Amino acid sequence: MATFMDVHSGFVGVTAQQLEEAHERDLAIEAGEGVHFARAWLDPEMGKVFCLSTAPTKEAIMRVHERAGHPTAEVYELSVEVA
Amino acid sequence: MATFMDVHSGFVGVTAQQLEEAHERDLAIEAGEGVHFARAWLDPEMGKVFCLSTAPTKEAIMRVHERAGHPTAEVYELSVEVA
Repeated sequence: MATFMDVHSGFVGVTAQQLEEAHERDLAIEAGEGVHFARAWLDPEMGKVFCLSTAPTKEAIMRVHERAGHPTAEVYELSVEVA
Repeated sequence: MATFMDVHSGFVGVTAQQLEEAHERDLAIEAGEGVHFARAWLDPEMGKVFCLSTAPTKEAIMRVHERAGHPTAEVYELSVEVA
């Protein structure tokens, strides 16, 4: 398992409730791919969403997001973290 | 105070130690701007760095990163978060 950040663009004006619903659709199907979406953040003015997850591969994340209705090709494997 | 994600590009091949040092330079001066960088993640293959912070404004983050030697103009205010 590795840690990933994926990025979605074009979500201008999306509400907190819409983000919550989109996230719930991911959570409902993530287990089938061995993915877990830990957190998601939205900048509704710039239309950006960032999802932090653990997953076996980049492709597993892309499959979950695509089946949940919000595909993205922008997925980064975060092999280094500092805090 | 608000939550922000900033993104740096072009960090291909950066090591864990280099990220740690860059993060330490931020931490050393962040208080002067009322910023706190909570976490930073690196994808050394794609050269992307994501920094999660709390700050009074986007500009405060930009000033800290610039003075620490790694400026970026890509800063998002995350007014919505789900987990």
